[in-house]
Amino acid sequence: MNSMTKKGVAEFLGTFWLVLGGCGSAVLAAAFPNVGIGLLGVSLAFGLTVVTMAYSIGHVSGCHLNPAVTVGLWAGGRFDAKDMPVYIVAQVLGAIVAAYTLYCIARGQPDFMLAPNGLAVNGVESQSPGGYSMMSGVLIEIIMTAFFLLVIMGSTHSQAPAGFAPLAIGLSLTLIHLVSIPVTNTSVNPARSTGPALVVGGLALQQLWIFWVAPIIGAVLGGSLYRWLAPDARSRPDIAGEA
Amino acid sequence: MNSMTKKGVAEFLGTFWLVLGGCGSAVLAAAFPNVGIGLLGVSLAFGLTVVTMAYSIGHVSGCHLNPAVTVGLWAGGRFDAKDMPVYIVAQVLGAIVAAYTLYCIARGQPDFMLAPNGLAVNGVESQSPGGYSMMSGVLIEIIMTAFFLLVIMGSTHSQAPAGFAPLAIGLSLTLIHLVSIPVTNTSVNPARSTGPALVVGGLALQQLWIFWVAPIIGAVLGGSLYRWLAPDARSRPDIAGEA
Amino acid sequence: MNSMTKKGVAEFLGTFWLVLGGCGSAVLAAAFPNVGIGLLGVSLAFGLTVVTMAYSIGHVSGCHLNPAVTVGLWAGGRFDAKDMPVYIVAQVLGAIVAAYTLYCIARGQPDFMLAPNGLAVNGVESQSPGGYSMMSGVLIEIIMTAFFLLVIMGSTHSQAPAGFAPLAIGLSLTLIHLVSIPVTNTSVNPARSTGPALVVGGLALQQLWIFWVAPIIGAVLGGSLYRWLAPDARSRPDIAGEA
Amino acid sequence: MNSMTKKGVAEFLGTFWLVLGGCGSAVLAAAFPNVGIGLLGVSLAFGLTVVTMAYSIGHVSGCHLNPAVTVGLWAGGRFDAKDMPVYIVAQVLGAIVAAYTLYCIARGQPDFMLAPNGLAVNGVESQSPGGYSMMSGVLIEIIMTAFFLLVIMGSTHSQAPAGFAPLAIGLSLTLIHLVSIPVTNTSVNPARSTGPALVVGGLALQQLWIFWVAPIIGAVLGGSLYRWLAPDARSRPDIAGEA
Repeated sequence: MNSMTKKGVAEFLGTFWLVLGGCGSAVLAAAFPNVGIGLLGVSLAFGLTVVTMAYSIGHVSGCHLNPAVTVGLWAGGRFDAKDMPVYIVAQVLGAIVAAYTLYCIARGQPDFMLAPNGLAVNGVESQSPGGYSMMSGVLIEIIMTAFFLLVIMGSTHSQAPAGFAPLAIGLSLTLIHLVSIPVTNTSVNPARSTGPALVVGGLALQQLWIFWVAPIIGAVLGGSLYRWLAPDARSRPDIAGEA
Repeated sequence: MNSMTKKGVAEFLGTFWLVLGGCGSAVLAAAFPNVGIGLLGVSLAFGLTVVTMAYSIGHVSGCHLNPAVTVGLWAGGRFDAKDMPVYIVAQVLGAIVAAYTLYCIARGQPDFMLAPNGLAVNGVESQSPGGYSMMSGVLIEIIMTAFFLLVIMGSTHSQAPAGFAPLAIGLSLTLIHLVSIPVTNTSVNPARSTGPALVVGGLALQQLWIFWVAPIIGAVLGGSLYRWLAPDARSRPDIAGEA
Repeated sequence: MNSMTKKGVAEFLGTFWLVLGGCGSAVLAAAFPNVGIGLLGVSLAFGLTVVTMAYSIGHVSGCHLNPAVTVGLWAGGRFDAKDMPVYIVAQVLGAIVAAYTLYCIARGQPDFMLAPNGLAVNGVESQSPGGYSMMSGVLIEIIMTAFFLLVIMGSTHSQAPAGFAPLAIGLSLTLIHLVSIPVTNTSVNPARSTGPALVVGGLALQQLWIFWVAPIIGAVLGGSLYRWLAPDARSRPDIAGEA
Repeated sequence: MNSMTKKGVAEFLGTFWLVLGGCGSAVLAAAFPNVGIGLLGVSLAFGLTVVTMAYSIGHVSGCHLNPAVTVGLWAGGRFDAKDMPVYIVAQVLGAIVAAYTLYCIARGQPDFMLAPNGLAVNGVESQSPGGYSMMSGVLIEIIMTAFFLLVIMGSTHSQAPAGFAPLAIGLSLTLIHLVSIPVTNTSVNPARSTGPALVVGGLALQQLWIFWVAPIIGAVLGGSLYRWLAPDARSRPDIAGEA
């Protein structure tokens, strides 16, 4: 029994987990004195949110957790346009609730202070961790999301080894973070960008449109490119790879 | 031949491994000068204790290694209440023996000293690695254990890809540690909290009840939620996913 | 439909990803202040480019992404000599485009400067990260590429467990980097060396021949050795292990 | 065709890879300035040598790469005593050749100096990285090797999920290193200890007996314990889990 309600709940829970786990590791543990997990640990955390959820709810909703993925899978011919609104609303809600929850946990530390680039918000220029230009930020978000979709489309293709897609997809998100955190703090996911931006406000909110536009452009490019490269006769609604 | 005795021995050995490997990495290697493994290494170690044991004893006992998991699987309709006492007693004994063993190894270093927050005990406020409040600690332990159970229930669901559950479950424990070590030193496992607390005593022992109550509340929530989300016709006693 | 054009496009995209992801993590994130990913993060990134692409395009082109791999698989009796030119040209083009793309992104940071050993170029002596001699560099490149081919040939052998080859091969590239970045910045891949060397020029370009000769010698040794060790009756064109 | 010669060659190559990869990462990359891989990177490297070789030569020789594993599998009823000499000789030779090769590469750096605890030798007391006592060292080597055998026996059991054993076994070696490098530099493998000790000599050679006796005691305990816990009707000569 896979009603649309349950799919929506699954996407809400999964995106909550992605933002709480990924942004949470950045906010709480990345720069912990002496033994902090650094950008490597944050990259691993983001990837593992997807690995763990894809094995757990892949057979419920397909585990997109990301409006760009939902749009990209539609562009790639793997997802029905009429289901897109429920998925995207559930993802954004999950991300917002996660960002507020993270804020509640983080402020339980006496010296916590919400900075304009706090809560792991995405950004460019003064909001970029390494001070990168908007051109660099837009370029890397488009390319990274395009390849994210290539991996999602490819590893769930009917000729790919069954069962490994959650590993391939989650680890590609780890890889994407290993490269691009210094540039934009890595979005490739409009929902993930929206949650923290709403809590923090200011510049984070003003730049939020970048992290809707660039990832979605990249996702459409990636989904379409893979569809041309290796068309798939059978539809695969679930990214866990076990229809 | 899977007698209850062998299941109890398997749970004892597995929880011993979880506490010796996880807490051991924290005590012996996390802050080693210049080349220490940090919280990232400790997170990986905790996760790998579960990955390795789930592939090794999953087919013997289901590899719970955690009273909250045992209770959560019961709440999720996957475990028989009458087997709970043996599992939980074996887990707690394994954790206690591991904590004492770790203490014996650690004090073989000339400058070893058992601090009130030593042996990787769990705690809040003055016992929290980052000085987080009890509210933050309770909140994160409940949420993290709930999602731990979602992953356990989901990745062993009959529609999930077979054989990958140990990876998904173990890596979710790594993710949980990447986020929450700074807050409570990460429990999500009452047995893991009990072992070191008994050796260290003092505040660690006074706060121990938190790490029984919060994880079990989270586990019951997670197990019940997943049961509603994706009921499973067939019973799956083993988390290794190969009945 | 697996025309040679699509195989070429797949090799181009995959090698682009290998160089952008691997060299990109080194250039953008390795030495980021306080929370940089270090050589461990770079090693993981290189490996994950192969893991993710092998699951995604393994069933299209076999996912070589490396002229030495293409030559080594030919020496090992797994690849047809007549397809080699298209593969190698596509790989080198992908690497060059990736290196220029990375350069465009990197210079979006105000204080970026292209050093003679920048863009993660490979090198020995004054161009070696640790100042190692040419003898050490040539020796380690030959040995590492030979074992890379042993792993590729072995994990795609018809008696190896199906579906795990991309993990084994990608993680062997991580391992190779964990050992050899300090010596040559790790090539084992002439295409990966060519891209950054063309952008940087100077000494990087003068030493480029080393990273064509040594990896190819190693690959031929490894491919031939494995062929003798465990001949395989059936041909396996794809390294993803699912013909 | 799996003649004993080919099995011996496979064990030689695999143990060469384990020592060159594991000890090589420690010697060349662990303490590299600013971006060194640390004990976490070394732990990962050791584990990945086993993961990669087990998928590649598991179907040739079973991929023991370790005299303690060979003896432990015999104690566990999984290996024939008459094949032990060839395996152990091949493993020790592979380790020795690897240690000399590593020495040749390492001394290509102008400021290389072979210290009495160089080349990643194992040791206790003044030779222990953290200065741990012989009691701590012996205790941890016995326990770690016993659990290593539990994981090897368990993950290759006929009821365990097929194909995952190389991951479980390799990652258990990573976990073992995450915990025990500070104590003994981690052996659990007499061949791995013998190679570097022969090159370095002195105290490393005097303490070598510890790293033959303790791991073999642990391996016999672990192999026998698992055999009692979950006897296996069918013989599984290969640890890759695909007979």
